Amino acid sequence: MRLSRSFLPTLKENPAEAQIVSHRLMLRAGLVRQTASGIYAWLPAGLKVLRNIGQIVREEQDRIGAQEVLMPTLQSADLWRRSGRYDAYGPEMLRIQDRHKRELLYGPTNEEMITDLFGQAVKSYKELPQALYHIQWKFRDEVRPRFGVMRGREFLMKDAYSFDVDYASAVTSYRRMLLAYLRTFQRLGVQAVPMRADTGPIGGELSHEFLILAPTGESGVYYDAALGEQDWLDEPVDTNNPEALEAFFNRVTTPYAATDEMHDTAAWENVPAERRREGRGVEVGHIFYFGNKYTKALDVSITGPDGNKLYPEMGSYGIGVSRLTGAIIEACHDENGIIWPDSVAPFKAAILNLKMGDTLCDDVCERIYAAAPEDFLYDDRAERAGVKFADADLMGHPWQIVVGPRGAKEGIVELKRRATGERREVSVDDALALVLAG
Amino acid sequence: MRLSRSFLPTLKENPAEAQIVSHRLMLRAGLVRQTASGIYAWLPAGLKVLRNIGQIVREEQDRIGAQEVLMPTLQSADLWRRSGRYDAYGPEMLRIQDRHKRELLYGPTNEEMITDLFGQAVKSYKELPQALYHIQWKFRDEVRPRFGVMRGREFLMKDAYSFDVDYASAVTSYRRMLLAYLRTFQRLGVQAVPMRADTGPIGGELSHEFLILAPTGESGVYYDAALGEQDWLDEPVDTNNPEALEAFFNRVTTPYAATDEMHDTAAWENVPAERRREGRGVEVGHIFYFGNKYTKALDVSITGPDGNKLYPEMGSYGIGVSRLTGAIIEACHDENGIIWPDSVAPFKAAILNLKMGDTLCDDVCERIYAAAPEDFLYDDRAERAGVKFADADLMGHPWQIVVGPRGAKEGIVELKRRATGERREVSVDDALALVLAG
Repeated sequence: MRLSRSFLPTLKENPAEAQIVSHRLMLRAGLVRQTASGIYAWLPAGLKVLRNIGQIVREEQDRIGAQEVLMPTLQSADLWRRSGRYDAYGPEMLRIQDRHKRELLYGPTNEEMITDLFGQAVKSYKELPQALYHIQWKFRDEVRPRFGVMRGREFLMKDAYSFDVDYASAVTSYRRMLLAYLRTFQRLGVQAVPMRADTGPIGGELSHEFLILAPTGESGVYYDAALGEQDWLDEPVDTNNPEALEAFFNRVTTPYAATDEMHDTAAWENVPAERRREGRGVEVGHIFYFGNKYTKALDVSITGPDGNKLYPEMGSYGIGVSRLTGAIIEACHDENGIIWPDSVAPFKAAILNLKMGDTLCDDVCERIYAAAPEDFLYDDRAERAGVKFADADLMGHPWQIVVGPRGAKEGIVELKRRATGERREVSVDDALALVLAG
Repeated sequence: MRLSRSFLPTLKENPAEAQIVSHRLMLRAGLVRQTASGIYAWLPAGLKVLRNIGQIVREEQDRIGAQEVLMPTLQSADLWRRSGRYDAYGPEMLRIQDRHKRELLYGPTNEEMITDLFGQAVKSYKELPQALYHIQWKFRDEVRPRFGVMRGREFLMKDAYSFDVDYASAVTSYRRMLLAYLRTFQRLGVQAVPMRADTGPIGGELSHEFLILAPTGESGVYYDAALGEQDWLDEPVDTNNPEALEAFFNRVTTPYAATDEMHDTAAWENVPAERRREGRGVEVGHIFYFGNKYTKALDVSITGPDGNKLYPEMGSYGIGVSRLTGAIIEACHDENGIIWPDSVAPFKAAILNLKMGDTLCDDVCERIYAAAPEDFLYDDRAERAGVKFADADLMGHPWQIVVGPRGAKEGIVELKRRATGERREVSVDDALALVLAG
């Protein structure tokens, strides 16, 4: 994409309304614009990030056999009355009346609807386990929306729901999802630590939050260093094998990890001092087992192995997709701007033409641009070199290919890696090859 | 995907609530389920179709340089007050109050918001032309929702908006979009005819509807056969050349074409009798030039070439993405079910195992399934052959690979093309190769 023809409006100044770094950088890099309190429009670069994140989330859900559906944003109030949550939910639920005075709501989550859809389609234990997910916009009417997309009102979320015949099978589904989450966050280029979460009235140990480590995070976190050193993509866990999943689960959940809310100082003392890690984190995912709470409330039963009716055991599993754009920036930035992980960057590389109109520079840039894949951005604006450097750092492209008149004469460009700041002079052909290989 | 593990609930009986064939077939084939009046959840197969359509629409928008953004579903009422449409819109607009009693609405269209976003980012004529689009859920509170997703309330639409410095340039943008639309519909596997539409108070000729020809269509259509015979994908029109676009536009819009609303019997008499085609059509797209109506109303100006301020000229361009799933079925079905065009089919082929448990049948099926790409569906259910044949026809897979015990013994399967009903016996290897080549 040519920057001169692009809708990528960067801002030089820090917007006054932005209190945290990800919000500032998302506005300055032209990723989003606020259109109403806590509601954002995604500009081309922001949408690319949102879609890259969504695609990785999708692939890891599909990998464990979860099936994608798409439920609507608006739901009938009646459905929520059946579960008892319509009155319980409080003012964060956006309640709506249509022209016939029928009550609707903008879905903040989908336990009721998925249970209802499941019940219409599945009649026998033979069809279980099932896991269904969707990636859809949701709304929570936060009393004070802030921090940009980190605490917006209209937000994009992946929510998955599992259905199993019994507790043992539900636990296996839960463990399978935990593995998928660890893989997902690692592929997104961030370190996420699973922390045991409060299970409320249901009790038990089957609730985990996932926090991305970031110095600006909202929660304090305490964890055993063992957890931070794992390569989850390299785990050869057979996701169809309950024993393998159990062993994996025990290995992941045994080391100490807790947010300040759940922190247990006595247990913390038992972690060897050299392995204790304290920091801050941003919550980006939450998985939860809740048994047959919704299948019972909505009277959704299936025929069990003994011919009797049975209320399937459920879990729900959320990832904040739009929130992740902010959370990744919180974890990946410096004083000059965003440092996108390769897997989610809106553009893999920017070609910076330091002297537009110079035949040699133009030629070299056009040659690279013509040979490059679609996700290269060509900064062909009539701007000073300093502006181009600053904008490229701000927008956070993993690579910058810098084309100046001196080098162009000899077919040489400068290749800069945003994350390390490393620069080197390479031939035009090598530049493209290095970016594509990296 | 294995059908036995899939969330693809087909129905044997015709649902009583469905009045038209596409609605019946979408419910029976397990593509959607209604969750509230005029509001639908998309099950896995339906979502695949929706995404396939969206992707083709996206590629053709990108091809002409339109840039994708994503605006939120909810909008501030204030924005619509500035254009004067908040009060004018009537009861089809879903109006919402949030917890602070601020007025929001569920966007039925996005002229105001895109104009506002454009105005925040673009300051000079040098940055024009621009075209921005998004594919997002919208809501129109139809008084009587019906015909399934064809006239739903929550619906998915691609809407694009062009911004130009003057009328001549705006007309070029309009013509470019018309070409993109013809290519889009052809790639979707349907014949869409552009019809001049009523431009209302603005006047002029720059409004066209696109109707898919289907015997069950809502509108009568009259058109010159010349229009129905074009291969738009084979048109070598340079979309950056205004003259080429003008010549193309004249060629497309000169032959007679009109819906019954706009039908001119005198002009119709001038079409040679052998070229007159009458039929019915379903509207799936609409393009519209409206000048500076919204830039003026929202006071969004840029600096013109002469240094004076200038209100950009706009057009808007819609495609009903969710509606198209129904419209394509209206055009592509028979008494047994859907006949998906290859480009939008949820599954390219189904492997029908006629005798589950038979070692030879199972082996042949597993062998094909293991070698096949992801969009093959394996019907591994413990059902009779008749049920599998009927469901495959109903779901409309372009190809069926039928594996029975007699053929399996000799490594032979039956390959059926859904659209023609043609069947032939081929070797296992040839079956896969033929499907992938076709």
